[in-house]
Amino acid sequence: MAIASRSWISSANDPESDFPIQNLPYGVFLYRETAHIGVAIGDQILDLYACADQGFLSILSKEVAAACKARTLNPLMSLGPEAWSALRRQLMTLLDEGYEKKSDVEPLLLSRKDAVMRPPADIGDYTDFYASIYHATRVGRLFRPDNPLLPNYKYVPIGYHGRVSSIVISGADIRRPCGQIKPPAAEAPVFGPSKSLDYELEVGILVGTGNPLGHSIPIDKAEEHIFGLCLVNDWSARDIQSWEYQPLGPFLAKNFATTISPWIVPLEALSPYRVPSFERPANDPAPLPYLASSSRDRDGIDLTLEVYLQSEAMRQQQMQAMMLSRGNLRDLYWTIGQLVTHHTCNGCNLRPGDLLATGTISGPEAGSEGCLLEKRHNPEPLRLPTGEIRTFLEDGDEITFRAYTQKSGLPRIGFGDCTGRVVALEAC
Amino acid sequence: MAIASRSWISSANDPESDFPIQNLPYGVFLYRETAHIGVAIGDQILDLYACADQGFLSILSKEVAAACKARTLNPLMSLGPEAWSALRRQLMTLLDEGYEKKSDVEPLLLSRKDAVMRPPADIGDYTDFYASIYHATRVGRLFRPDNPLLPNYKYVPIGYHGRVSSIVISGADIRRPCGQIKPPAAEAPVFGPSKSLDYELEVGILVGTGNPLGHSIPIDKAEEHIFGLCLVNDWSARDIQSWEYQPLGPFLAKNFATTISPWIVPLEALSPYRVPSFERPANDPAPLPYLASSSRDRDGIDLTLEVYLQSEAMRQQQMQAMMLSRGNLRDLYWTIGQLVTHHTCNGCNLRPGDLLATGTISGPEAGSEGCLLEKRHNPEPLRLPTGEIRTFLEDGDEITFRAYTQKSGLPRIGFGDCTGRVVALEAC
Repeated sequence: MAIASRSWISSANDPESDFPIQNLPYGVFLYRETAHIGVAIGDQILDLYACADQGFLSILSKEVAAACKARTLNPLMSLGPEAWSALRRQLMTLLDEGYEKKSDVEPLLLSRKDAVMRPPADIGDYTDFYASIYHATRVGRLFRPDNPLLPNYKYVPIGYHGRVSSIVISGADIRRPCGQIKPPAAEAPVFGPSKSLDYELEVGILVGTGNPLGHSIPIDKAEEHIFGLCLVNDWSARDIQSWEYQPLGPFLAKNFATTISPWIVPLEALSPYRVPSFERPANDPAPLPYLASSSRDRDGIDLTLEVYLQSEAMRQQQMQAMMLSRGNLRDLYWTIGQLVTHHTCNGCNLRPGDLLATGTISGPEAGSEGCLLEKRHNPEPLRLPTGEIRTFLEDGDEITFRAYTQKSGLPRIGFGDCTGRVVALEAC
Repeated sequence: MAIASRSWISSANDPESDFPIQNLPYGVFLYRETAHIGVAIGDQILDLYACADQGFLSILSKEVAAACKARTLNPLMSLGPEAWSALRRQLMTLLDEGYEKKSDVEPLLLSRKDAVMRPPADIGDYTDFYASIYHATRVGRLFRPDNPLLPNYKYVPIGYHGRVSSIVISGADIRRPCGQIKPPAAEAPVFGPSKSLDYELEVGILVGTGNPLGHSIPIDKAEEHIFGLCLVNDWSARDIQSWEYQPLGPFLAKNFATTISPWIVPLEALSPYRVPSFERPANDPAPLPYLASSSRDRDGIDLTLEVYLQSEAMRQQQMQAMMLSRGNLRDLYWTIGQLVTHHTCNGCNLRPGDLLATGTISGPEAGSEGCLLEKRHNPEPLRLPTGEIRTFLEDGDEITFRAYTQKSGLPRIGFGDCTGRVVALEAC
């Protein structure tokens, strides 16, 4: 596949665009009240339903063309990496600046700006991990100053199950949750709105082909089961969390909303940007054999992740959103392949469309914290350009995640925005 | 509805039957390779697809008749309590011994014994609670002898999310899971088959009508959202659990398999067997107002629950299964309505077909422990009639749960079996 190719859609050739012809992320949008699959290209969406319907995918297998006419990505996800590659090649052909019949394809485009996006897949199960050692250490230090990291952390890719019903697509408002909160000095908890609402910056892994119940996925096959990646905001109510989470983990502190970005970036699009996996300090244990990959030199992904906040006051004063942090996916202690393999090592079955999220992605240095809770360690409070101070999120705050990778001689591959705005409760 | 009525299906009038005309639990079975909805009646199943198809439900709304022709119970679940009651009344009419056209209905019956059952619903999310204070206390004592119950227990109906993909129907084999296990004396964990596989005796709550994201279900409306109950075996690998569960809760220790019984007993069928909710000791706090029900005199359910084990050696010697424990649903610290309301108090949305399980149901006395882990407190080891000793489950062990309620002058309402057999791993 020619990395250097350009598209006849000029916005796709803008070096600032998230969506050059080398990306082609998949999403689902509403076309006259019906869900269609599309790929993002520059500021446009190519309608794959229409492509299949009009014969532009007829050189592919019937299954692929049929999957492109589905209402979600699940059928396409279930077809596996060869089918995904074949479709991608054909879409690149149709969008390449050298394609001769571009005037036939042009009517199948629509403006991305005007599109109403839908959840990309029927997500059967959602699992959230805890793969950033920097996040785990900073959060642990708040609870256990002398012993921040638990003994299992360097052996077990810690994870837990999340809630599927409350996964929403970027742009949906996030209502501040109510819950039981116990102030440290109080005898008993009270029921009321969360006062410590937080975001968590995560990357989502969308499962392609699954595995049957009772069978695991070997580490060197794990990435073959990954369809693509998106951004995830695992909104968290820290006051509800600290009171409820023992002994079975977070529940209502997390399941009121999880935002995902609408475009699923194919793992293949990220192939040129792979880097070695996290370098464990010399004293750390090696991963157990079932988690030991033979491709450690390229198991990481160099993906820059940014968090922006715009308060209500900033919006009223027409101030741009302020960057709160910048981190990188390569800083995770566990690779995306290790998360998949660990999840299935007991025979647990994954299904096409399942969502695995990495957990909050934080780096080692100040300014790379993937949530507000971690910023408590900073000596200075977080001050917005309006002079407002933020410890946790206030009503009206809009949080936006962005992600991109760049490399000399290669285009920028981006993920688009993952956005949500906190709205006030009427009553608890 | 006449409680004393009898059916023209004689097996339904057997006082030992789980399925008299007053029960009529819903399930999904295979009819010529197609999933049909049915109700259990004595040793038979009445095919609701056929009933709807042949006009026996034409006095009901079109929506109800259409829902009875669906492949899962989800459409019926979404219609709400009035629709469920109307359908139930009509089915009672068709099956009542006084019904005049029984010969027209008879061809729509099939033998329950020969039926292949399917999952009753598309379960969107599965939540597991921890509602037995006796279970929480006994398990807590193993980890914290001086402080078995955490401070949040009497305020928060503790729960966490489980895995949907690995929910299987009664009768499916349960493969022993592999995982990371850290022997107490060892420096590092090893990867291998679980050596402490356990069952957990639970009741499942199938959600009928859901609630929109951002809206909660008030406590006095909670039961209107419950379609019915089933039995749940939340298989657990204790050695995997104790190593992985901090700080985010159980994950691979539980998600390799969860067995549910195939018949969903309507809440309405249990109405005559309601009892007061758990009587909190005088020093316990009252539930916070959002969990305070105005019908405490009938928020409990008098449901006897039994666990049976048959080992491979017992099967070979044609010995009956041995009863391991007997408990009662009324011993739960939290009611089923409180579980529903707490789950939604932060705005989390439930959807038709969602499964909420109570957590292990244990009573105060020896012999009422709902899992093997709790039996560690007993001075004598568990000895099977073959002389075999059980600390945890061995390959070949078959676990069966049964549940029933009885009351003078009223028929027995039962749940049918919830069974699974542990099978050996080939390799990890």
